[in-house]
Parts: sequence; structure tokens; C-alpha cells
Amino acid sequence: MTQQPRAWAYLSRVVEPPCTELSALAARVGPVEAAERVRRGAVSARLGQRTEARRDIDCAAGDLDRIGRIGGRLLTPDDDEWPALSLTSFNGVDVRRLPDGVAPLALWVLGDTPVGEVAMRAAAIVGTRAATAYGEHVASDHSEGLAERDVAVVSGAAFGIDGAAHRAALAAEGCTVAVLAGGVDVPYPAGHSALLHRIQRTGLVVSEYPPGVRPARHRFLVRNRLVAALSGTTVVVEAGLRSGAANTAAWARALGRVVCAVPGPVTSSASAGCHVLLRQGAELVTRAEEIVEIIGRAGEFADEPARPSSLLDTLTDTGRRVYEALPARGARSADELSIESGLPVAQLQGQLALLEVAGLVVQHDGRWRLPKPAKST
Amino acid sequence: MTQQPRAWAYLSRVVEPPCTELSALAARVGPVEAAERVRRGAVSARLGQRTEARRDIDCAAGDLDRIGRIGGRLLTPDDDEWPALSLTSFNGVDVRRLPDGVAPLALWVLGDTPVGEVAMRAAAIVGTRAATAYGEHVASDHSEGLAERDVAVVSGAAFGIDGAAHRAALAAEGCTVAVLAGGVDVPYPAGHSALLHRIQRTGLVVSEYPPGVRPARHRFLVRNRLVAALSGTTVVVEAGLRSGAANTAAWARALGRVVCAVPGPVTSSASAGCHVLLRQGAELVTRAEEIVEIIGRAGEFADEPARPSSLLDTLTDTGRRVYEALPARGARSADELSIESGLPVAQLQGQLALLEVAGLVVQHDGRWRLPKPAKST
Repeated sequence: MTQQPRAWAYLSRVVEPPCTELSALAARVGPVEAAERVRRGAVSARLGQRTEARRDIDCAAGDLDRIGRIGGRLLTPDDDEWPALSLTSFNGVDVRRLPDGVAPLALWVLGDTPVGEVAMRAAAIVGTRAATAYGEHVASDHSEGLAERDVAVVSGAAFGIDGAAHRAALAAEGCTVAVLAGGVDVPYPAGHSALLHRIQRTGLVVSEYPPGVRPARHRFLVRNRLVAALSGTTVVVEAGLRSGAANTAAWARALGRVVCAVPGPVTSSASAGCHVLLRQGAELVTRAEEIVEIIGRAGEFADEPARPSSLLDTLTDTGRRVYEALPARGARSADELSIESGLPVAQLQGQLALLEVAGLVVQHDGRWRLPKPAKST
Repeated sequence: MTQQPRAWAYLSRVVEPPCTELSALAARVGPVEAAERVRRGAVSARLGQRTEARRDIDCAAGDLDRIGRIGGRLLTPDDDEWPALSLTSFNGVDVRRLPDGVAPLALWVLGDTPVGEVAMRAAAIVGTRAATAYGEHVASDHSEGLAERDVAVVSGAAFGIDGAAHRAALAAEGCTVAVLAGGVDVPYPAGHSALLHRIQRTGLVVSEYPPGVRPARHRFLVRNRLVAALSGTTVVVEAGLRSGAANTAAWARALGRVVCAVPGPVTSSASAGCHVLLRQGAELVTRAEEIVEIIGRAGEFADEPARPSSLLDTLTDTGRRVYEALPARGARSADELSIESGLPVAQLQGQLALLEVAGLVVQHDGRWRLPKPAKST
């Protein structure tokens, strides 16, 4: 049965990822047959072109030996712990529509945690290498909060925001995942070698590139899609206007995930990219709870920030009548509230708008309810 | 013809604003007849109740004398410069649906600028009294930028954000409007007496309360609706969770205006209210141009922040094909782009999503175009 892993290892190196066509072929005919066809050149013209340069190179045995010697493994779609990054759809998004594919062919992994399990409950915390003290503080804070709530922190091991996110997750004894743009045995940046070693002890270091592959510029962009794909949401903490974090956010959005961004001073160029994302519809997050709410288990809502009880005091009599017409549980339509409060619907609408802005009611699909009470967890 | 102003002055004091019913009565039968009916108690039971306490008090002559002596005037719906705060609708919103009315009965004004003209092109800059240096800096910056673009800055003359906004507009020789919660001859806060005097020399000090009326707690909330109503948009610069600025924002929203908020550090409690507004859908603004774009003349768009030319370099070949399929002017549907680029629609969609996130294309009603080029103004 060593034939299968060797075939996957061969396929993993023979093409520069991503390559949907090769993944699809392996899924259809199995990795051994797929490898055989690639070797013989018995593939489509396009795939033939993409595999031509490397099809005669077979380092599979050496690669598997190398990953084994450093305590790692090659994870393939044949494994149970393969993450639910289906080739055809992911969270309801048909990823075959994405031109260059999303799912990796295979993953080279350091660390014992099952990748599939981690990806079920993970958030990416990413941002600029040129982070400010504020950005590093917030990245640490959010990462710590996620770790405390059993959410894995995925990032790219870069200096700045990425590093702060990984370190805080480690400090909180949470699981953190570093996705590299080169082989997992090529620590990058070199200054983060020690950090990457710490990550693999309790978390995961992951790459779709075989051992020994050096990170190249285009590989960072390809890698970013895996950061987004392995996470329920991508949170951009600080990003300049040309930060790679915007690329990760773009992938997250293309994959149908919620993109989050942390606001900062409008005077800080390190927050300018975040503000662009927020203006384009990214979710503004201020606390880890809000991130957990997005990726979290159903029913796990962030506590509202403590509200002054006197907010109710500022209501007009009419406002209070509308407010008090809402049931403790469940939602009501405007018509139902009109009957309950004795106010005409036209008058009700203005009041509901005011109450909604004050955060005293929430609307969903045209029905109104009281905000969920804060949970005591 | 002194009968009319005296009738308006009487009406302005006889009821505690806002009072839609009295405004409607004055509009229907004229101010003189309305005043007469109120005096005789020949009004609806509700209006009778609301005017009972003051209907025998007539300080109209004294009030008009007092405002005249300090160089001010009483502005009424009979005047040409009455702002377009129609009783029945405003920017398409039927304000009669708002329970307590929006349009003031009359306005007591210091300053020579026509109120109606100012309200045509004005933005409210509001925020907490407990402003940080960051908040005051941004308020000044935005206010200066608005003044330079001939946009009047409306605020409430409070300490903190309001004061910074007024001062910066004055320094930039722009028009600024202070809306008070008491008589225009009762400078409040007292520490802003000198500021208010400077404002009235080149801008406007406005109130719906007759001379001598002291600001009371509930009057600040009532006043906030005028700040919102006189402005094309309301910008909250800094606000704690229980700041009055949230009330102004609520009014703006109820009036169908865009609410803007300035982000700040998530670690700053002075920005917490802004972040709540942003999470509820307020527009994130970082520069005055973005505010002007919202209230501005058609075609006046904010320049995009300088984008690195190398963003295009990060495109895949497919991405570039889609990008290059877009015409220099005008928009295209996905089907048209598919024909132009030779790519299947399914593949196109993912690319367009990526290009959109990168800000390289914009979508409107399912049609795609290049972003408007920066204007050289």
C-alpha cells in the first residue's frame, strides 16, 4: 500500500499548484493511475503542458522519507482527517467555478492534530508585516480570545500580525496552524524558525508544496487561498493598501466566507486596507466573541457590550409602547405589533427604526424581536 | 404685517417642541388664526392639553424685540430662506409618519446666512464630549475638508467633537451651524460663549426655542433631530456606548439620511459607539471627500486612495483577461464579458469577485465596470 502515498507525493510535485484538473483526475481514476498517465503523457493537452517539465522527475520516495524523518506526514484525500475541502463544493460554494481550483492535491503536514477537525472550527487572523503596536496588540487579543474558545488560529507565519496571532494562540495553549508558501521543512521567514517549531509541537504547520520547495512570490498568493479555505472566516487585523492580507480576504470572499476587518485610526496607513475592506462590506469586528459568533456553533452569540440601562429612559412614551409590545421571546411583524401596541403601522415604523438604531430591537426578514440576552458562559 | 411674526413667536413658545399638530394647524389656517385658536382653546383635545399651561403667556413682542436687539431674527415657514424641511416629506421620507414631527415650527437665528441655502449642502459632525486627541484631530480634519469644499458643518456646540468641528470650519473660513437646545441668547456650554459669538459672525446659531429658554435634558434629544434634519448626512466621529451622538444618528437614519461613522482603535471606549453604528450598517468614512461624495452634487466622487500600480501585477492570467475585457467607459453584464473575454460565465464570476475585492472593478445592478478614475480637481 505504499504505492498510493508515493503516487500522491509524485503528483504533489509534478504540477505547480493549484491545478483543479489534476485533482479531478486523481479523484476519478485514483492517484496511482493518475500518476501513471501523467508519466506517460496520456493526459489532456492542457495538463500535459502543465506537467511536462517535471513528469520525469520522481522524488516521491525521497520526499516521503524526508517528511517522515522530521516527524511529519503527507495528508491526502484518501485519509480520514482530510479536511472537508471538497473538490466540487465547500460551504455551498461550487468551487469548480473558481478558475484555478481551491482544494489542494495533498498537504504536507507537521504536527499531530487532525487537519479536518481543526478546519471545522478555525479562523484566519492575518495582516501586514508592517504592523503597528496597536495591530499586534489586537491580533494577540483576538487570537487569545479565539484560543480560549477552542477556535484554531490559522495564519501565514509572517512577521507582524501573523506572528502575533500565532504566538498569542500558543501562549493561550490553543491550536494554531501555519500555512507555508514553501516546504514545511523550509522555515520562512527564517527569523520565525523557532516559532514554527513551537507551532508544530501543539498545532500544525501545513503546505501543499513538497519538502525542500522554496517559497516564491506567486506561491504566497496561492498559499493565501489555503489560509482562507481552512478557516470559517478571515479576519484582517491591519493591512496597508497593498498588503497581501487583501488577497487572503479576496479568497475568503470568493469562497463564500465572511471577511472580517478590524478598524483602526483613520490616520494610520496600517489600517487603510482594513477600512477599504469595511467600506466594501467586510464585517467590522472589535472582539474575539464577534469572530466566534460568525464561525461558531449555532446559538453561540457574542455578548452585547454592556449597555447603560438608561437607554430605555431616553425613549418617548410612544417608543416605550412599541418596545413593550415586543414579546420576551420570538419575533413579531409590524402588523402584529400594531395590534399589540394600539399604534398605527405608519407611526410604528419610525419608532422601530429608532429602537433598532439604539440596539433595543433587531429586525430579521421584516420581523422584529428583542436582542438576544447576554449569555453567562 | 407685524401680526404674522408675533403670531409665530407666540406659537413658538406656547408648546414644547416638537409638535407636528401645531405646525400642521399653522400651515392650514395661517399663524395668526392658529395663535387665536390656541389662545381661545379652540383646538383638538390633545393640542389643548399641550398648550394649556402656556396659552395665556404672550411674550411674543418681547421675544422679537430681544432677538432683534442681539442682531438675530425669527425665521418662519413664511420666509423664502425657510429650509426645505417640509412638514409632509423630506428627501422622500414622509415625516408625518414620525410620531413627534420633524420640522420645527419656527427657528430663532443668529447670523446672516440664509438657512435654507446652508441646509442644501451641509453635513453634521457630531460626537462625544469626552473626545480623545485622535477624535478631535479627525473632527477638525473632516470639518476643514468639508469647509474647503463648501459644505457647511452642522453641530451642537458641545465640548469635545462638536467644538473641534466648529472651530476647524471657522479656521478654514467655512460656514458652520450651531444648533442649540435653548435660546440662542443663552450660550451653552458657557465655556463656548466666545466660540458661539464667532460662529454667528460668519455662520449660524439656530434654535427652535425662544430667547431666554434654558437647555434642559430632554431638549438636547429634541435638538439632535434638527442637527440631523439640517444635514445631508450625520457623521459620528467618536462616541461612547451611551453618547448623545447615537441619538443624532438615530434621527438621521429615521429621516432617511446616510449615517456615517469614523472608526478608531477597538481599544478606545470613545470609538465603541462608532463601531456599534458601523456594525449596524453605518457608512465608514475616513476622509472628508467621502462625506462630500455622500451629500455632494451628482458626479462629485471621492478620489480613490492612491493604489499601487502593481495590484494589476498580482492578477492571474485569467484575472487579467477578465479585467481587460472591461471597457474604459460604461458597464457590461457577465454574459457580455464572457463573449468579450472568451471565458465561460461560471469561471468569470469567481474572477469578478476577486477583482471586486481588489477594487479593480465595481458592480452595480449586476453590471460591471472599471472604477471611476480619480478626478484632478
